[in-house]
Amino acid sequence: MIKTIVPAELNEKKDKLRIMDQTLLPNEEKWLELDDPESIWEAIKMLRVRGAPAIGIAAAIGLYVCSLRSQAGNVFEFGKEFEKIKDYLATSRPTAVNLFWALNRMTDRFHREKNKSIDEIKWALLDEAEKILSEDQAMCRAIGRHGLSLLKSEMGLLTYCNAGGLATSGLGTALAPIYLGCEKGYNFKVFSCETRPLLQGSRLTAYELDKAGVDVTIICDNMVSQVMKEGKIDAVLVGCDRVAANGDSANKIGTSGIAILAWEYGIPMYILGPTSTIDLDTPTGADIKIELRGEDEIGNSFGRRTAPEGVKAYNPAFDVTDAKYITAIITDRGIVKPPYTKTLMELFG
Amino acid sequence: MIKTIVPAELNEKKDKLRIMDQTLLPNEEKWLELDDPESIWEAIKMLRVRGAPAIGIAAAIGLYVCSLRSQAGNVFEFGKEFEKIKDYLATSRPTAVNLFWALNRMTDRFHREKNKSIDEIKWALLDEAEKILSEDQAMCRAIGRHGLSLLKSEMGLLTYCNAGGLATSGLGTALAPIYLGCEKGYNFKVFSCETRPLLQGSRLTAYELDKAGVDVTIICDNMVSQVMKEGKIDAVLVGCDRVAANGDSANKIGTSGIAILAWEYGIPMYILGPTSTIDLDTPTGADIKIELRGEDEIGNSFGRRTAPEGVKAYNPAFDVTDAKYITAIITDRGIVKPPYTKTLMELFG
Repeated sequence: MIKTIVPAELNEKKDKLRIMDQTLLPNEEKWLELDDPESIWEAIKMLRVRGAPAIGIAAAIGLYVCSLRSQAGNVFEFGKEFEKIKDYLATSRPTAVNLFWALNRMTDRFHREKNKSIDEIKWALLDEAEKILSEDQAMCRAIGRHGLSLLKSEMGLLTYCNAGGLATSGLGTALAPIYLGCEKGYNFKVFSCETRPLLQGSRLTAYELDKAGVDVTIICDNMVSQVMKEGKIDAVLVGCDRVAANGDSANKIGTSGIAILAWEYGIPMYILGPTSTIDLDTPTGADIKIELRGEDEIGNSFGRRTAPEGVKAYNPAFDVTDAKYITAIITDRGIVKPPYTKTLMELFG
Repeated sequence: MIKTIVPAELNEKKDKLRIMDQTLLPNEEKWLELDDPESIWEAIKMLRVRGAPAIGIAAAIGLYVCSLRSQAGNVFEFGKEFEKIKDYLATSRPTAVNLFWALNRMTDRFHREKNKSIDEIKWALLDEAEKILSEDQAMCRAIGRHGLSLLKSEMGLLTYCNAGGLATSGLGTALAPIYLGCEKGYNFKVFSCETRPLLQGSRLTAYELDKAGVDVTIICDNMVSQVMKEGKIDAVLVGCDRVAANGDSANKIGTSGIAILAWEYGIPMYILGPTSTIDLDTPTGADIKIELRGEDEIGNSFGRRTAPEGVKAYNPAFDVTDAKYITAIITDRGIVKPPYTKTLMELFG
């Protein structure tokens, strides 16, 4: 399986953040080796690394490798430099919750260790970054294991956007059951929707599944009804950005339409994500604000005009799938089925 | 309203086929003036003119302007040249039913007039070509008038692909009620789905509606569920390629998904097309063969790779919308509502 962050986690010497530049995929596989705050900030900002878990991990490892370069003569000076780098990296993508979470976890660890020597502190920071990474990998495997229990070999599976290895440090979320199934010798036939406007489904999901030897076919987003009608799809597997207390789930724009089609054709609709995505403080999907993105992403696709200059475009980045269309929510702690208001609460009980 | 074939029908001297090159839209508005078989054949073949009615009209006018250049000394020689050009133009798009229909109508007229002088025959051919064109324009207006009776000012309307002036010589089919409403001062808010993979919705529909001063907004095909959920859509208007005897309707891939979403959100779904599109010899949609197109249209979009080299793509060009999701079929002869098996038959009774 291809990974966005190198399998040896950092690199042999563990002194660089090593990530694949996702903006160049699928046309070029370029690994970046980063060890200064500016280039790490730029890589997160410009989506060279993307996906909530992957961003958090890159920031944690990045903060560690930057701290290695410190020339501070005492822990107080080291700590001042550390905080400055942390605050700077936090500005790279100000809406990415996982970014702050990972940076704060590194900072908490620093504070717990600050009575030790600088070298000991550096080792503790490496330990914390590797923990964040390995917990993420374990989370992916757990989601995959639970998800796979619902699938059989030879099934046709539809996925959307990219909730795979490129978005995490491990097997991904929605793609984890597919990878675990392949380890067991299952033959899935995966259909990946290209996912306009940024084409994460064709650029990233098709890329990583193909690399892993999975049978994958790209379709345009408007072909879902037809492939379902032809009987090619036995289950839908998608990721999620936020799950409300009643099970309503926010994900990449287009997910709610697929869910309604799956419902109409009698196909199970599975939402996969870490428990941390479930937000019991958000009562329903109506409480989730939908981010609107720039019009140019639609009308100026792929470096040329695909729509008349000056014509309006409407570009919501997410939509919310009503809980009633969701067959199950698959988390690292297990599978949750309706009634979600009760079962999601129990997951944390 | 912008037209693909010039409003003065041919041109001032009526000796050229004048069409706008649709392959260059929306970036360039280039009118072509054609009067030889090779360039007319190439324009149809390369989709410089497209849309079933527009292809037929272009072929009829094209056949006429080519016949003008004949140096034949007698009607027999003229007829031989005429048949040769006709057979040649018929090979430009071998699956376009309207192309043969229009060329055959011109040939029938020739045979009815062949006892007259060459000059009189040429005038008769011009008359026939202009009849085909004006009948098409009348058909569009009739569809528009019937469709408009179902709409009110200020409505939000969703349309798909291009069933507009660019596909006909007149107001189009699905867009005809919109143009007629605008003539009456109605304010519609039109959402045009971009329509992957060839983007007829953003390249062509948005272009012609914007030119006509209609309030048009482009969305990606995967945003339909969200704009419907937000209450932005009061009716869906789409064209059709073939309507079966039970009302099942084939149209551009993606239409059936929109119909299911409209059904789920309680929004009327209207199919608009000329009576000639209704095929009572086709019992149901299951009898309509779905054309599969090349994989490169998806993976090699916009002049560059948008998917990994070698990954499969599935590219059905059409889908069939089940009659149960269709609120009404709007034709030049009137509005047809369920039960379609009965009402469509009555339309021809």
